[in-house]
Amino acid sequence: MTGSVLPVERVVADLTKLRERAPLVHCMTNVVVTGFTANVLLAVGASPAMVEAVEDAGEFAGVADALLINVGPITTPMADAMRGAVASARDCGTPWVLDPVAVGAIAFRTKVATELLGAGPAIVRGNASEILSLAGADSAAGKGVDSLASSTDAIDAARALADAHGCVVAVSGEVDYLTDGTTTLAVPGGDPLMTRVTGVGCALGALMAAFAVVDAALPAAAAASTVLAAAAEPAARNVAGPGSFAVGLLDELYRLDAAALAGR
Amino acid sequence: MTGSVLPVERVVADLTKLRERAPLVHCMTNVVVTGFTANVLLAVGASPAMVEAVEDAGEFAGVADALLINVGPITTPMADAMRGAVASARDCGTPWVLDPVAVGAIAFRTKVATELLGAGPAIVRGNASEILSLAGADSAAGKGVDSLASSTDAIDAARALADAHGCVVAVSGEVDYLTDGTTTLAVPGGDPLMTRVTGVGCALGALMAAFAVVDAALPAAAAASTVLAAAAEPAARNVAGPGSFAVGLLDELYRLDAAALAGR
Amino acid sequence: MTGSVLPVERVVADLTKLRERAPLVHCMTNVVVTGFTANVLLAVGASPAMVEAVEDAGEFAGVADALLINVGPITTPMADAMRGAVASARDCGTPWVLDPVAVGAIAFRTKVATELLGAGPAIVRGNASEILSLAGADSAAGKGVDSLASSTDAIDAARALADAHGCVVAVSGEVDYLTDGTTTLAVPGGDPLMTRVTGVGCALGALMAAFAVVDAALPAAAAASTVLAAAAEPAARNVAGPGSFAVGLLDELYRLDAAALAGR
Repeated sequence: MTGSVLPVERVVADLTKLRERAPLVHCMTNVVVTGFTANVLLAVGASPAMVEAVEDAGEFAGVADALLINVGPITTPMADAMRGAVASARDCGTPWVLDPVAVGAIAFRTKVATELLGAGPAIVRGNASEILSLAGADSAAGKGVDSLASSTDAIDAARALADAHGCVVAVSGEVDYLTDGTTTLAVPGGDPLMTRVTGVGCALGALMAAFAVVDAALPAAAAASTVLAAAAEPAARNVAGPGSFAVGLLDELYRLDAAALAGR
Repeated sequence: MTGSVLPVERVVADLTKLRERAPLVHCMTNVVVTGFTANVLLAVGASPAMVEAVEDAGEFAGVADALLINVGPITTPMADAMRGAVASARDCGTPWVLDPVAVGAIAFRTKVATELLGAGPAIVRGNASEILSLAGADSAAGKGVDSLASSTDAIDAARALADAHGCVVAVSGEVDYLTDGTTTLAVPGGDPLMTRVTGVGCALGALMAAFAVVDAALPAAAAASTVLAAAAEPAARNVAGPGSFAVGLLDELYRLDAAALAGR
Repeated sequence: MTGSVLPVERVVADLTKLRERAPLVHCMTNVVVTGFTANVLLAVGASPAMVEAVEDAGEFAGVADALLINVGPITTPMADAMRGAVASARDCGTPWVLDPVAVGAIAFRTKVATELLGAGPAIVRGNASEILSLAGADSAAGKGVDSLASSTDAIDAARALADAHGCVVAVSGEVDYLTDGTTTLAVPGGDPLMTRVTGVGCALGALMAAFAVVDAALPAAAAASTVLAAAAEPAARNVAGPGSFAVGLLDELYRLDAAALAGR
């Protein structure tokens, strides 16, 4: 494992601040995962708002505390709405997260995500295939929305991407890596059942947006990854399958406290 | 607490009628909550149909027993489809419910909801901020989709709105208030976990539409609020968090009977 | 009960092959059920991808292993995207499933589904009302998305439809029937709670697409029906209601093995 671990005290402090502040997270995410993403944010203590219409998105991004842009199932009007929201977020200095779902596998999303990458996200979060694709690696191998590469394979690409765009890049996988190009943090843990529930990765992007309200981008991304892994572990224990796991994950995000984080 | 309580016998009678009739509830609601709303209606014994395309909505509203219009994440084409559905419902004398999600916080929704309010809904259901905004109160304070005001603060606005538009206005909160401008009913109970699951308020609007098929608008709105609160209370008991609570809420809506309603 | 039962050894072999191959199933399905459909496919061991934009769908159908077309809440642009995806699937010889949700009840969907039926699906899956409508029966009786006819009533219409279009037709109901016009298979079992959770029928269409990657259309459709029924039965045992049942259904799809299939 490459990279150091964010001190648990920092994760605890960030989670406490998040729950006190209950940041309003403007989510523009794909239709498959909107409900689950909102429930993850509510469970952890944030205040989600799914505002995706081109008529609303620019206005709302100007009042939200953070913005999530997830390019899963986007259409041309949704891409326009995302451009408007990102422009508002930039004007207001609001942190925003780019989740390049299935980039590399689908041309239109690759085009939109590459364009948005140039607009200055605080954090880019993807799986190894998506990060390799965004970084221009020819070897990027994705299967639909799933990665065929491991997160370790994408560390160099993540660092290069972070350097080139002045942002934090998060690669999700068996170990999550988070880098600003110079410092690399690692978050091990979690559970394989996380890949058997749709939207867990997408929800992690939303958590990163929420944490980016209460800490700088690199520790925020690592705190979000840590909180998700720490909730997933007890949720996966003695569970019958992915249905119960998804329910337990929301329960554990709600219950998670300093003792549970320290006891991992 | 202002207002009287709907007699439990009336709630039981309405619930029995609803389950016998299994009303077809045409839902035009936001993408975040469609699945949960459908599951709430199925659990209680209604027959939901999510028909949202401009190509279908007018036609379908003409055959449904009730219509729900929820202005969460709407776009211009969805607003057109809603206008068509409302026109059909009016022509057929079908009761319809308006849920002004995030009105006041977002300009486009405020415009559409205000316009639809003029088209004669049977019931308008919102949180305190939304009702205050619709009533034109300058003090309306919303944070995204969440209210920063309490339902008690919005009783006068609700009465004025009900008087002005000849409809029932329902304000959701720690206590739900339901008024036709003259009579005000109150439904206490429920559980704070209802605010940690996305779409519980939206589902209440759908329940009100279903109950409006079997009773007049004011008792229907109160019966729906009572049924939701009565299901939420056992669902919240000894529960680990919002994931389990959402599952239990569906179970309890399905199991709810006269004894459980009388025993509260 | 008309029709014979697919040997359990064939179901076990198909399920084993599906889990080894983890087929990439391109789903174009309705917004109400996208999350649940993805979770059903993930639980059973397939790899779902919800790709619905007209900008992406044709391209993606050319790389997926199977395609699901569900005409629930479609709009004109979605219908165009579906046409593009179906054309790609045909070019590549990729099996695709047509789910004619609410056909007969809604004119626009009837038009689109009838057109797509002519484009050569491997399998058409619907409830009795939908299959009767597609076959042109005047007696078709649907109530929104629910059937008022029993699956047995639609066997002759299913056979005629299968003959006319050279495809397999699956009629869902208390007993599922699957026919290529000559041979008819029957899958009894399951549980009435399947009708109290939104999207169970839609998810069955998705399972049929996944199984069509590893077997011919008729046994694939029967294997999918059998797997769903076999998971539903233990999920319904001692359950408090439809909330818990939906969770348990995902768990049981994940756990289902040869012993459980043989022991039914």
